Amino acid sequence: MSTDSCGVTAHPCPVIFMTDQPRVGILTISDRSARGERPDASAPVIRAFVEEHWSWAIAVYRIVPDEREVIRATLIEWCDELHLNLILTTGGTGFAPRDVTPEATRDAIERETPGLAEAMRADSLKKTPHAMLSRAVCGLRGSTLIVNLPGSPKAVRENLATLAPALPHAIDLLREAPDTEAGHTRTA
Amino acid sequence: MSTDSCGVTAHPCPVIFMTDQPRVGILTISDRSARGERPDASAPVIRAFVEEHWSWAIAVYRIVPDEREVIRATLIEWCDELHLNLILTTGGTGFAPRDVTPEATRDAIERETPGLAEAMRADSLKKTPHAMLSRAVCGLRGSTLIVNLPGSPKAVRENLATLAPALPHAIDLLREAPDTEAGHTRTA
Amino acid sequence: MSTDSCGVTAHPCPVIFMTDQPRVGILTISDRSARGERPDASAPVIRAFVEEHWSWAIAVYRIVPDEREVIRATLIEWCDELHLNLILTTGGTGFAPRDVTPEATRDAIERETPGLAEAMRADSLKKTPHAMLSRAVCGLRGSTLIVNLPGSPKAVRENLATLAPALPHAIDLLREAPDTEAGHTRTA
Repeated sequence: MSTDSCGVTAHPCPVIFMTDQPRVGILTISDRSARGERPDASAPVIRAFVEEHWSWAIAVYRIVPDEREVIRATLIEWCDELHLNLILTTGGTGFAPRDVTPEATRDAIERETPGLAEAMRADSLKKTPHAMLSRAVCGLRGSTLIVNLPGSPKAVRENLATLAPALPHAIDLLREAPDTEAGHTRTA
Repeated sequence: MSTDSCGVTAHPCPVIFMTDQPRVGILTISDRSARGERPDASAPVIRAFVEEHWSWAIAVYRIVPDEREVIRATLIEWCDELHLNLILTTGGTGFAPRDVTPEATRDAIERETPGLAEAMRADSLKKTPHAMLSRAVCGLRGSTLIVNLPGSPKAVRENLATLAPALPHAIDLLREAPDTEAGHTRTA
Repeated sequence: MSTDSCGVTAHPCPVIFMTDQPRVGILTISDRSARGERPDASAPVIRAFVEEHWSWAIAVYRIVPDEREVIRATLIEWCDELHLNLILTTGGTGFAPRDVTPEATRDAIERETPGLAEAMRADSLKKTPHAMLSRAVCGLRGSTLIVNLPGSPKAVRENLATLAPALPHAIDLLREAPDTEAGHTRTA
């Protein structure tokens, strides 16, 4: 259920607490990749995008099968114990019988952020009508943002490009201490 | 509560199991049509579209009043007993006090497919600002896709045209046996 | 928790029952404004828009802190006791830890109207990518429509302009007595 083919190791990974940069986790959700039958082509794309565009390090990376309870538990662990700022999932957002990433994400989040998923789908629809089949969910648990990305590397890159102009600001807002919050006009 | 003015009869309808084509149900939700006070103008439009664009047969057709429990029970019966591949509802998605189709649909589905409803509304908004009043919900119960269409025949046709380039692929994904599933890259 | 800086007083306000015009409430959600540390810049913008574009009077106005239970209780009181036709909230829809307006709104509504929030975000995205961070929720409780607007006066004005072509029709539909309802074709 865990690999380091993305170039990072799973926790324990104490270095993630030694930087002021946002801490990012990549969770690949795929039965076949979890069984080792298929290389994970999307996580390296995510990692490259995050490092190049935001200079954020990947703190943790894991591959899990399309099991709702396993996905849910991993998300909660990464939010509550690793205190990640951002979790990017890839895979399991479609119509296939075992695609349950959105349901597991809803199980984990406390506050939904529907605008992110809407923006990703609207942008992708300009490329392909199949984008309307994405069931991606995005939301917050504590101060961690969870974003469901699709499974295909190409679609992953497109969706990250959609989020790019807003995501750093979103993470900044989440990292503010509650007692220093500046009121309700900070977001558009 | 049941008519065959759309040209098909309610079940039992064994022919629906004798084809490899997707099996489609049309559920019209309207107090006045259920009372026979108003002809159902939308179901024939749906039927014509489905037959012309996809060559799929309508396996079952029914008119029910705007009653949440009746709608919910019909949807569940058609998913769990008739094993339809697609249910297209028409009516009951607006702001009127008795419009409860979306709530009944949420009661029945297990996995929401928000991209379909978003795409229909976004496209319709290009025609009329009233499109933002559609509360349509789409989602999956088992391997059946349920799509809420609006009540007006014109809007029904527009929304089906929005779904047309993606719906056959969606149905294909749902009809795959779980053990033959090809991984998470099949959908964009 | 209550001020009249918007130029209207909190209830009791019997005049609101003496007109056939829709009755509108403005609920400002802001810790700092509730503590009197910051003037409420958005409510006057809402009031001006509602009066100028629709000639509707503001029946009630209140400022509450970012407390889910306080927001929820206020919304329910305004729906069930004041029988408002429209409640416009401002603030608390972002990513900050105390932004809980959408959650409190979901606690209060019975039927969601996702098309309004989608349309506001889609329009705002044409102005700024930060619009995708809006978590606004819209929905119905009884015959009252609740709309979450963002906190910034500029974004409030933009979002109201998005709703303007459809909102009066929405309110008309909600004010129809159930027994005079005209079937499911009234909305697009």
